[in-house]
Amino acid sequence: MKLGFIGLGIMGSAVANNLLKSGFRLNIYNRSRKKVKDLTSDDYEFLDNPKLVAQNSDIIFMMLSNDEACENVVSSNNGLLEGLSSNKIVVNFSTVSSYYSQKLCNEVNKKNALFLEAPVVGSKIPAQNAALIILCAGDKKAYEAANPYFEKLSKRVFYLDAVPNASYLKIVNNQVMGITMQALAEGLHLAKKLNLDLNVVLDLLNSGAFANSMFDLKGKNILNNDYNVHFPYEHMQKDLGFAVKLAEDKKAFCPALSIVNEIYKKGLSSYSKEDMCAIFEALNS
Amino acid sequence: MKLGFIGLGIMGSAVANNLLKSGFRLNIYNRSRKKVKDLTSDDYEFLDNPKLVAQNSDIIFMMLSNDEACENVVSSNNGLLEGLSSNKIVVNFSTVSSYYSQKLCNEVNKKNALFLEAPVVGSKIPAQNAALIILCAGDKKAYEAANPYFEKLSKRVFYLDAVPNASYLKIVNNQVMGITMQALAEGLHLAKKLNLDLNVVLDLLNSGAFANSMFDLKGKNILNNDYNVHFPYEHMQKDLGFAVKLAEDKKAFCPALSIVNEIYKKGLSSYSKEDMCAIFEALNS
Amino acid sequence: MKLGFIGLGIMGSAVANNLLKSGFRLNIYNRSRKKVKDLTSDDYEFLDNPKLVAQNSDIIFMMLSNDEACENVVSSNNGLLEGLSSNKIVVNFSTVSSYYSQKLCNEVNKKNALFLEAPVVGSKIPAQNAALIILCAGDKKAYEAANPYFEKLSKRVFYLDAVPNASYLKIVNNQVMGITMQALAEGLHLAKKLNLDLNVVLDLLNSGAFANSMFDLKGKNILNNDYNVHFPYEHMQKDLGFAVKLAEDKKAFCPALSIVNEIYKKGLSSYSKEDMCAIFEALNS
Amino acid sequence: MKLGFIGLGIMGSAVANNLLKSGFRLNIYNRSRKKVKDLTSDDYEFLDNPKLVAQNSDIIFMMLSNDEACENVVSSNNGLLEGLSSNKIVVNFSTVSSYYSQKLCNEVNKKNALFLEAPVVGSKIPAQNAALIILCAGDKKAYEAANPYFEKLSKRVFYLDAVPNASYLKIVNNQVMGITMQALAEGLHLAKKLNLDLNVVLDLLNSGAFANSMFDLKGKNILNNDYNVHFPYEHMQKDLGFAVKLAEDKKAFCPALSIVNEIYKKGLSSYSKEDMCAIFEALNS
Repeated sequence: MKLGFIGLGIMGSAVANNLLKSGFRLNIYNRSRKKVKDLTSDDYEFLDNPKLVAQNSDIIFMMLSNDEACENVVSSNNGLLEGLSSNKIVVNFSTVSSYYSQKLCNEVNKKNALFLEAPVVGSKIPAQNAALIILCAGDKKAYEAANPYFEKLSKRVFYLDAVPNASYLKIVNNQVMGITMQALAEGLHLAKKLNLDLNVVLDLLNSGAFANSMFDLKGKNILNNDYNVHFPYEHMQKDLGFAVKLAEDKKAFCPALSIVNEIYKKGLSSYSKEDMCAIFEALNS
Repeated sequence: MKLGFIGLGIMGSAVANNLLKSGFRLNIYNRSRKKVKDLTSDDYEFLDNPKLVAQNSDIIFMMLSNDEACENVVSSNNGLLEGLSSNKIVVNFSTVSSYYSQKLCNEVNKKNALFLEAPVVGSKIPAQNAALIILCAGDKKAYEAANPYFEKLSKRVFYLDAVPNASYLKIVNNQVMGITMQALAEGLHLAKKLNLDLNVVLDLLNSGAFANSMFDLKGKNILNNDYNVHFPYEHMQKDLGFAVKLAEDKKAFCPALSIVNEIYKKGLSSYSKEDMCAIFEALNS
Repeated sequence: MKLGFIGLGIMGSAVANNLLKSGFRLNIYNRSRKKVKDLTSDDYEFLDNPKLVAQNSDIIFMMLSNDEACENVVSSNNGLLEGLSSNKIVVNFSTVSSYYSQKLCNEVNKKNALFLEAPVVGSKIPAQNAALIILCAGDKKAYEAANPYFEKLSKRVFYLDAVPNASYLKIVNNQVMGITMQALAEGLHLAKKLNLDLNVVLDLLNSGAFANSMFDLKGKNILNNDYNVHFPYEHMQKDLGFAVKLAEDKKAFCPALSIVNEIYKKGLSSYSKEDMCAIFEALNS
Repeated sequence: MKLGFIGLGIMGSAVANNLLKSGFRLNIYNRSRKKVKDLTSDDYEFLDNPKLVAQNSDIIFMMLSNDEACENVVSSNNGLLEGLSSNKIVVNFSTVSSYYSQKLCNEVNKKNALFLEAPVVGSKIPAQNAALIILCAGDKKAYEAANPYFEKLSKRVFYLDAVPNASYLKIVNNQVMGITMQALAEGLHLAKKLNLDLNVVLDLLNSGAFANSMFDLKGKNILNNDYNVHFPYEHMQKDLGFAVKLAEDKKAFCPALSIVNEIYKKGLSSYSKEDMCAIFEALNS
């Protein structure tokens, strides 16, 4: 199996490195060539466009930041679709809207190629440590072919049948994450207004039934005014927005989601490039 | 030190039993005498009213369900206040509003007695297992006197200086718990509307950075339609309501809290006596 | 100018009758032929499909209930698009999403035909009384050609340049209407819980600076438990949902809109076919 | 009947002037004596403290900004309560919390004096034009005695039986006003993000079923960035906060109220002294 890899951002280069480390050779494309500096092995070929990657690979992995970035790679001149043919497999690790993922699946299938959506749970450090959780949906045979590679990247893989079930599950996961993050932020905000010692508050929250490693990590960062990005604020908002639209289409009743999304939107102009936990600052300002 | 204990509800009897088990004799009062059947030792005397408990004890512990229940015990004819005198210590384990706790503190102090508010984190099982977390505020000497007894009941004690800091911290803790619970409930609600397998969703939520034992326990209960009460829905709402009023008085910005409280209020007529996780049902109905 | 008219629902038949009353002959299509019974003149020809209407008319008016109904009429076999040709004008009175309106505009233009979106403000009675407000956007020449007909239907016409500005304005209008309606419903709900006389409350609300005819009408209906439909609850929710999606795409901060939409969604299973003011019942139940 | 008047703020001096204009002599107290410059007649006596006003008057009117200001006037040394005696009537025009109004009523009654709560609807201009709406509750005979004076100040008086019904009604009125104001602000905010012409939007909103004079006035002010105070932003928030607490105590379901109150709270640090319609700015910033 010849492997292609498109997208060398923070997440993409970490994943690509794990494939290289496992001994697989990669056909690589990235909008900016200089990102190959982040690769830890020379066992790759950089190609000039996504079409060439598709033509020269059996499985093409993509890891990009959003719908628009994927659409550029897929549908431009010399884009991915132009290079696809029968039985090639496209695996999209990017978190995109479920609507776009379905559309992308349809377009890939029209070329008689196979499609897997495979959004991941976990950010930079788990990506580097091959400790991601992969949520995969799409053609079962494609999944079986891709799974050996998934195992080099992840601690766990969920297979969820048809597209866009994996997108759905990723969105639900991040919906829960966003509201849980808000719970911490609002608790610390009220505690501050009450003149409580925030270290004590955090200590207590880390001792009870709902203690979790995100509260521990993000709580400490908030107390240190450390908003260095692990999971970007703007991505959190993007995913909450996906959930809001799904809830609208399915007539699901999600009031906390809706309001948390509004608060994240409110802070976009100030905090989009910081970590998601900057929502604490958005409450104060 | 002679000990008094008032309130033999689910929590109160569990705590009283741990004191009895540790070899302390108790002067006991409860509105209904028959609740003494839940006590696991005979080393107590049941007295006819709170005044007698106060007169015959050095430290009086109270564990009641809300402000009104406390006020009845404290201020009625033959109530606690009538029996207080210099240097007696009143310890209130009940979760009450911070306003009421301050008022109670003032009234006890007027009798030259000492007051500790000591709301606990943890429900029935931790109470039985002497694994509560006690949040204590009030007179430092009273705290030092009460602490040896606290250690028989809890895995951890936080001392927070002046009243009502412990009430504040308890309210913040339950604010975060309520919103976090809502995060789970809304995630499962949307997932259901998306026709995802809820067992898989819960499996994923239990695998990531914000996995926590409350999600595990309450999630399973929700999937089994098991709303047997650990922490009553109406108490969750009561505590969220306390937080809303504090946020109003301190002009804290807590939109998720506000909306989660509204949703809990909406379900009161149907779910008040069930477990707090019945909020999942409140989203559907 | 030969006129076509598609859609004989409550709104459509009222509008068609005003055109007939003004002496214009209509080529008519409706999914169910029997709705012609609501027409008050015989000066029309009922055609078998939208394609025939398009082929035999210079201006084709459509008034349908939502995106899906429009898409069926436009893109099915023997649909409107198949009958369009150069310089024919399509006028869509239906309130649809701005996304769909733009798409429809593009498809009509591909046939070298002209497109106007023209959602109306006002429900059944204003439609019958030729007292609608028409919000129109699209080709200026098409607007000039259609305007003489608009004048027979409306008390006022706004022209807003390019598509989808009229859709946008309609959505903003109904966003404000929905939240204002919620203001009344929540006020009456709290007043009821306070045991105030709701007639007095309504009397006061109708006396102050924000008194308006909707409060007067809907208030009385609520007090009489009269939820006969003027503007359907489900359409109010649909339009709030459009606004929520626009606010998401434009990153507008609309917390009241978001929460009001959630509450409308919550009541859909019980009140969708009743009047929008049934939101009062949704608060109680 | 000898009349006392306490409080010469914007509202108080307007009301006092209407009493003077009607030929009534007033015993006046205000924290700062120099405010008498706003009085348009000399037919008054300025007294040194509220006790003297109470001693020398049969009916004492108060118009102050909030609970704290009333409490200062009523309960300080040389406060109102010290001067009360049998059959004197206290009329409180101030908008205070229903809890405080009930407490004040009880304290006045303990002196065998009579109490009326009489919050007004209408701001500066209606106060000057004797066009207020007075909401009155309390002793019926006191009401009959005070009513001739009310008629010199107002266009309409509602009598609502027992305290705190008038406070309740005032709070409900302002709850509806606050949410309706938010409807306008969010509509204009979304419209701006959609690049619509806000003058056109306002024109449309002023043409439909929910057109009202507040939308007209506040809408124009918003478009002109004119936030000169008619009704202070901080008073709007205060009243929304009263409504939130009442909704909590009565377990009323008021999600839009809750969230609008949060947004008003968020803007307090920037807009408290501007007009309530500065909520539009709070959405943007």
